[in-house]
Amino acid sequence: MINQEDIQNIKNVLLSSDDVLIICHLRPDGDTLGSGFALMNALKHFGINTAVACEHPITPKYQYLCNGEDVQKIPFEPKLVVTVDVATTDLLGDMFSKYKEKIDIVIDHHPSNKNFGKINLITPECAATGEIMYELICAMGLQDDKVIACALYTAISTDTGCFKFSNTTANTHRITANLIDTGFDFSDINKRLFRTKSQAQFTIETASQNNMKFYFDGKLAIMSITMEMMQTAEATEDDVDGISTLPREVDGVEMGITMREVEPNVYKVSVRNNGLVDCSKFCSIFDGGGHKAAAGCTIKGDLYTVMGELIVEAGKFLEDISY
Amino acid sequence: MINQEDIQNIKNVLLSSDDVLIICHLRPDGDTLGSGFALMNALKHFGINTAVACEHPITPKYQYLCNGEDVQKIPFEPKLVVTVDVATTDLLGDMFSKYKEKIDIVIDHHPSNKNFGKINLITPECAATGEIMYELICAMGLQDDKVIACALYTAISTDTGCFKFSNTTANTHRITANLIDTGFDFSDINKRLFRTKSQAQFTIETASQNNMKFYFDGKLAIMSITMEMMQTAEATEDDVDGISTLPREVDGVEMGITMREVEPNVYKVSVRNNGLVDCSKFCSIFDGGGHKAAAGCTIKGDLYTVMGELIVEAGKFLEDISY
Repeated sequence: MINQEDIQNIKNVLLSSDDVLIICHLRPDGDTLGSGFALMNALKHFGINTAVACEHPITPKYQYLCNGEDVQKIPFEPKLVVTVDVATTDLLGDMFSKYKEKIDIVIDHHPSNKNFGKINLITPECAATGEIMYELICAMGLQDDKVIACALYTAISTDTGCFKFSNTTANTHRITANLIDTGFDFSDINKRLFRTKSQAQFTIETASQNNMKFYFDGKLAIMSITMEMMQTAEATEDDVDGISTLPREVDGVEMGITMREVEPNVYKVSVRNNGLVDCSKFCSIFDGGGHKAAAGCTIKGDLYTVMGELIVEAGKFLEDISY
Repeated sequence: MINQEDIQNIKNVLLSSDDVLIICHLRPDGDTLGSGFALMNALKHFGINTAVACEHPITPKYQYLCNGEDVQKIPFEPKLVVTVDVATTDLLGDMFSKYKEKIDIVIDHHPSNKNFGKINLITPECAATGEIMYELICAMGLQDDKVIACALYTAISTDTGCFKFSNTTANTHRITANLIDTGFDFSDINKRLFRTKSQAQFTIETASQNNMKFYFDGKLAIMSITMEMMQTAEATEDDVDGISTLPREVDGVEMGITMREVEPNVYKVSVRNNGLVDCSKFCSIFDGGGHKAAAGCTIKGDLYTVMGELIVEAGKFLEDISY
């Protein structure tokens, strides 16, 4: 699946370098951070000066990966720059935009990646960039390192929704088995990542569930989150990160819409499906876009006007789909 | 881990039998049903007359396993009786109690199993009975069968909370990789089992979250579900099956209590921890019991009296734990 020649080549370039800067994407998630810190720890084994860097800070739930290290600075003038899980150079952020034309190695699994590095290893068949990084770690002979295994597990488990999403493969499970064999406490990681929500997340989810409305025989579920609700719950962006999956989870729903007020009377709309509806086509009505299964748009207006527009269009849309 | 001699022995007994009745436990879950239907399908491959039976009906979410077959009857006078995932003979139910002394083969992973069969294969180190059944299926040479793989995946994924719980092992992931290799649609199964809730479940969860209260700096979370709430939500036992994990999921909670009114002014209390508190010891105050991580008791009284008693005792309990 992954070209072993590419892996060997990248390994050789990395191990003959020094001052290696590993850049994660904006609003860093488990895959970019897990892959980044796995690589950082591996290179340190070989005495290479290296650091992980990112425009945005690491959210509390991923702090265990970095030992409190500050990623929002460039700690040295890099001789080699690697990006992990970064689909486009826009996702490097302003701080790192000066390296745009100087990326040495790009390691990613996003099919849309434009190969913006000098060396590019892009494998869309991998559920997570962490799976590619695992191959590189094996090539370096460090597959038994617990700290690295923990970082790679974080990468893989978060990008697959703890092995729930359809991107999961047999290979995902095989790699995970090997990672668990190292003996790190994966159960503690699962608890942190998949079985714990902040007070604010709990509060904003409950408030949103309270106003979820169902239309068209339950085929449409629509939920709204106003700025006032966010303030009352003391919720941050992190706390509503995965909230737009909630409407779709109710049995019978074909189209789940989450409206979130991001500025007064400006709603960021997220649309999710259960297989039938084309969310991207729906969002294009409101000048938005995305994928079939997940898309978005932005609509200006007061809460009930925007909601009304969405319901009317969703109704036409749901009429057209065949079962 | 699993004794291969035992596996061969059980295989030989099964394949030289006919009219094999496979009994699942009361209130059948994914593990007992998945293991049972995997075995049924395997035996049918060899032309053996066989059926899965259970005192209680199969809930809608597991119907895909059985093709609408009615499990609540004994379709033939069995020559061989096998129980799968049944920890005690009490869990056979009244209908099958006549076989209590006549169980030929017991296949289970519960450490408390008392070996009530003539042949017993009990391996507590397996996360699910489905893992033991996988070994048996391999011994029969049927590991490439999609229908069987789907049933085993159901067994293993449900008993591990889709690979989230601490009972998951490297072997769990290795078996799962092999199952996925057969090509059944595991992603559809994940959606049914882990990403869909009924309208009633959504309604009762939201209502319960609304009345969740926090005490002692957020270390105690307590939630109540009255009979009236159940009626309003049109919720069944199935809809509140996993609800008692909700309080514990909020960050900072050491003890999560769910009170459910099962008869007027009779509350079934479920207690869950986050590692520190001994739930079993707590429930023993109210003449209940269970495990350290999950325990229960029943308390009579009106809602606020019962809640008050629980809060007072929980307060004393939380004072005593050391961090």
